[in-house]
Amino acid sequence: LKSAGIITLLTDFGVSDPYVGIMKGVILSINPTARIIDITHRVRHGHITEAAFCLADSYHFFPKATTHVVVVDPGVGGKRRPILIATSDYAFVGPDNGLFEPVFQNYAIFEVFHLTKPEYFLPDMSGTFHGRDIFAPVSSHLSLGIAPSKMGPRIDDPVRLKLPRYDLTDDTLIGQVIRVDHFGNLITSLRREEINQFLGEASPVINIAGVILKKIHRTYAEVPESEMLALFDSVGRLEIAVNMGRAGDRLQSVSGNIRGASVVVSKGTTLSK
Amino acid sequence: LKSAGIITLLTDFGVSDPYVGIMKGVILSINPTARIIDITHRVRHGHITEAAFCLADSYHFFPKATTHVVVVDPGVGGKRRPILIATSDYAFVGPDNGLFEPVFQNYAIFEVFHLTKPEYFLPDMSGTFHGRDIFAPVSSHLSLGIAPSKMGPRIDDPVRLKLPRYDLTDDTLIGQVIRVDHFGNLITSLRREEINQFLGEASPVINIAGVILKKIHRTYAEVPESEMLALFDSVGRLEIAVNMGRAGDRLQSVSGNIRGASVVVSKGTTLSK
Amino acid sequence: LKSAGIITLLTDFGVSDPYVGIMKGVILSINPTARIIDITHRVRHGHITEAAFCLADSYHFFPKATTHVVVVDPGVGGKRRPILIATSDYAFVGPDNGLFEPVFQNYAIFEVFHLTKPEYFLPDMSGTFHGRDIFAPVSSHLSLGIAPSKMGPRIDDPVRLKLPRYDLTDDTLIGQVIRVDHFGNLITSLRREEINQFLGEASPVINIAGVILKKIHRTYAEVPESEMLALFDSVGRLEIAVNMGRAGDRLQSVSGNIRGASVVVSKGTTLSK
Repeated sequence: LKSAGIITLLTDFGVSDPYVGIMKGVILSINPTARIIDITHRVRHGHITEAAFCLADSYHFFPKATTHVVVVDPGVGGKRRPILIATSDYAFVGPDNGLFEPVFQNYAIFEVFHLTKPEYFLPDMSGTFHGRDIFAPVSSHLSLGIAPSKMGPRIDDPVRLKLPRYDLTDDTLIGQVIRVDHFGNLITSLRREEINQFLGEASPVINIAGVILKKIHRTYAEVPESEMLALFDSVGRLEIAVNMGRAGDRLQSVSGNIRGASVVVSKGTTLSK
Repeated sequence: LKSAGIITLLTDFGVSDPYVGIMKGVILSINPTARIIDITHRVRHGHITEAAFCLADSYHFFPKATTHVVVVDPGVGGKRRPILIATSDYAFVGPDNGLFEPVFQNYAIFEVFHLTKPEYFLPDMSGTFHGRDIFAPVSSHLSLGIAPSKMGPRIDDPVRLKLPRYDLTDDTLIGQVIRVDHFGNLITSLRREEINQFLGEASPVINIAGVILKKIHRTYAEVPESEMLALFDSVGRLEIAVNMGRAGDRLQSVSGNIRGASVVVSKGTTLSK
Repeated sequence: LKSAGIITLLTDFGVSDPYVGIMKGVILSINPTARIIDITHRVRHGHITEAAFCLADSYHFFPKATTHVVVVDPGVGGKRRPILIATSDYAFVGPDNGLFEPVFQNYAIFEVFHLTKPEYFLPDMSGTFHGRDIFAPVSSHLSLGIAPSKMGPRIDDPVRLKLPRYDLTDDTLIGQVIRVDHFGNLITSLRREEINQFLGEASPVINIAGVILKKIHRTYAEVPESEMLALFDSVGRLEIAVNMGRAGDRLQSVSGNIRGASVVVSKGTTLSK
């Protein structure tokens, strides 16, 4: 897979410090023609699961051969390994702490390399900023065409992450709120496929923090302003929203922390086709 | 107008979610050489007027043939049309909800096209994220040289927006606070031209939330630290500021919501030339 | 020094307004091939010292011949001079208010030019936004190969800044908290070199807002979760952190404003090698 020269960055570094800019400087110092795109730097500090979902929802919209650098790295400087993952479509670079679980789930074939070759790192290694010292320079060397296999030995035991998805019983399909987005929409772990399969020809009954919703809409504008609704979001996840409002704020006041809260789907009346 | 390959993004998507990064991935997947510049993603949620002013103050600083993508889209997935506007200098892409009013006001000649050709969209359309599904891919196809007229039929009835500007009586010129910027400066709808014309040779008396200012300065440093002043901002709008301080915070505590508040200019003593 | 065509931006403009996007539009209008990288736009409003430290920690990670534009400019429109600094490695552009002190300290040889030639500015100058009117266009003309000496006369008296560094007595080495980063880590003015030299073979005793720390660690993970520690950050500054927590929030509640607070290093027991 020949590099596209495009490198994305997804971190919990925020945008108030020079950290992200420094990573870009390191990348351009190695490959001045690399093109760098920010996915987001506002993952909550140390939230590996949040970063994994963010990666899952975005990486496949980029050109083939893009390198995705993901740095949410609470174990920086400790024993966790720095890794590179090569698939048929993309390369991924970051710490081996479960961040890349969606990649492992989506690809039948992938190779994982333990980044051990200091010639592809910055010369002066810190114990606190491997985004700068390892992941940025490795991604940039990759973009110049260095083969992943030159960067370190292949490994077969990358850290796997249990991502919240769904629990299925005869009567209920239970998921979780995985993120509250900028608009206050609740993004859940339940996907269109499993919901449709679970419901069959029954109508949905969705319970989120005690609020009951009986329909899955297609767009916000299908309900009156300020009304809560369920719909599938732009990547097929069940989303709870308020038309022109903030579902997160409203449910937060009912239930305390809405992040991680359960969303329970059960079967209503059977729909006639 | 041959595309410059430069695409700007102006949205209310914030920077915490992967949404903006995803739009960039879609653009680069179609035209890997496109250059993408963020104007801002922090327009307040759904505030079409705020976005329109933001566009008005920025689009003309870009190279000719830049494509400006603006997505503040409370009606996403509903009946509002996706449109493309071509002028002699720039192209504009976004929802037909009034966002582009400044373009309609500034250009005598422009063409508006209703984006109807799915071959220029992403194959899987969502009901909630047309920034990704329509506006990003259309802007990228444009940057490859596809003619606007290929993207859909020309229309003559784009949605127009009543932008706050000014009300003029014999004794007063009344405008509105349209934005509070990062520095706490109040940006108003009144422009240098109409103020100068209104005042003639009279000195200004400006009333903002009960505070009276009797001079229009050229720079912040012309008044002592912490003192409030009026001046023309960098695009010629009347601005209320505090030297080294935050006018918005100070007036907010006096008047409640300062956004949308009136600013009243009346005539003081006649100046001798 | 031939320009690399890379221009970085470091400002206190925030990311809610179109100001940064406008600067990029101006740069690209002059040199459409310039590559623009954000360092940060979240320096606190008017904090020249904070911007100077931010510049000090980041500029040298960029390719040689990068132009660094720094705009924290409380005196905009007043008497402070716009300047350009040329060193053997980089160019720097911004207001003459002390921002570039780290450059003056790090380079034995540098040239400073007073930007006086309006042909390299925007035609319509404002009194409030020289980032757009002077610094962006000058940086872009530089990237096209215009010699610094053409931009204005050389000057020998740029404004110097007293940056907090350290006070040394026989018994103590005293520094200051210069920044609280996105993770709540306290970044101090004390550097590894002077601490090691001061301590010699003694163990460290660090006092920050009454909390005593007796070791300087290499990584966060060397202490249990939620425990406070001292370590050297990724550019060699003494940093006070909490493993998986926020040192700034914890010490803020003890001491009020932790920014600018003293950090006192004294000598503990002598270590045997």
